[in-house]
Amino acid sequence: MAQTEGAVKFTAVKPQLMVKAPRTVDAVQFYKTAFGAVEGGSACCPRPTTEQGLPNILCAVLELAGCSLVVYSDESAPVGSEGIGTQLCLETKDVEAAISKAVRAGAVAEGEITEGGGACCGGRVGKVRDPFGYVWLICSPSNNCAVKCC
Amino acid sequence: MAQTEGAVKFTAVKPQLMVKAPRTVDAVQFYKTAFGAVEGGSACCPRPTTEQGLPNILCAVLELAGCSLVVYSDESAPVGSEGIGTQLCLETKDVEAAISKAVRAGAVAEGEITEGGGACCGGRVGKVRDPFGYVWLICSPSNNCAVKCC
Repeated sequence: MAQTEGAVKFTAVKPQLMVKAPRTVDAVQFYKTAFGAVEGGSACCPRPTTEQGLPNILCAVLELAGCSLVVYSDESAPVGSEGIGTQLCLETKDVEAAISKAVRAGAVAEGEITEGGGACCGGRVGKVRDPFGYVWLICSPSNNCAVKCC
Repeated sequence: MAQTEGAVKFTAVKPQLMVKAPRTVDAVQFYKTAFGAVEGGSACCPRPTTEQGLPNILCAVLELAGCSLVVYSDESAPVGSEGIGTQLCLETKDVEAAISKAVRAGAVAEGEITEGGGACCGGRVGKVRDPFGYVWLICSPSNNCAVKCC
């Protein structure tokens, strides 16, 4: 186990910014206008349009200065919680080993590993909270989306 | 102005994680142990050792999966505020133009542009809060440090 954990490799770090569900499209537009971010492909996890006919994007990947940012909405988030939902996603093929290693170092696992859940469009996702209060998503690369995201 | 703003280019995105001042060293060690992060060079902005003889690091740059993470302490932060201080740093040579463009897109500038202030070791630093509550540091690349950081 120790050897497996030692071999954990991360292939990407992706900051994730949570916004209220109806504002995901606004947020994507803002980051494009304000910072010149570029959409990394089709919006991720699109769902049928809203009652108002607007696209109900749940997750979008933006490319900015060589980094991927994920803008996502979490329907389970409490109302009024915008701007407090930064998470850092670490992408790896070894989700279990990565979580185990982080926990041994002092992080606390939160919830179970899920398949295609959370803010992501596929792939396996686990979550740990580090001793300093930050939440890290440990995700496997997903392939069933126009762009890789987690 | 519009033309200048249109030409704003960002060269890096660096998530910054605020921790309480005495715990910066612990946090750096944790991210190395848990995730295999590598220190990007000498700790940034070192100050004389604390009364207990411990190194009083104010800012450290970690490299992880091709991304730079900045772990920093903010002595002005309220006690007990750990884990709520995520900021995203955008590095650019055009700090003023970048801030102006962001503000025109809907962000709110916070404070003045400072030289070598904040969590950074040199360079010019401004700050904007976007309409979704997230704080972005707009920083010029700094050269007076063992590693580039902001």
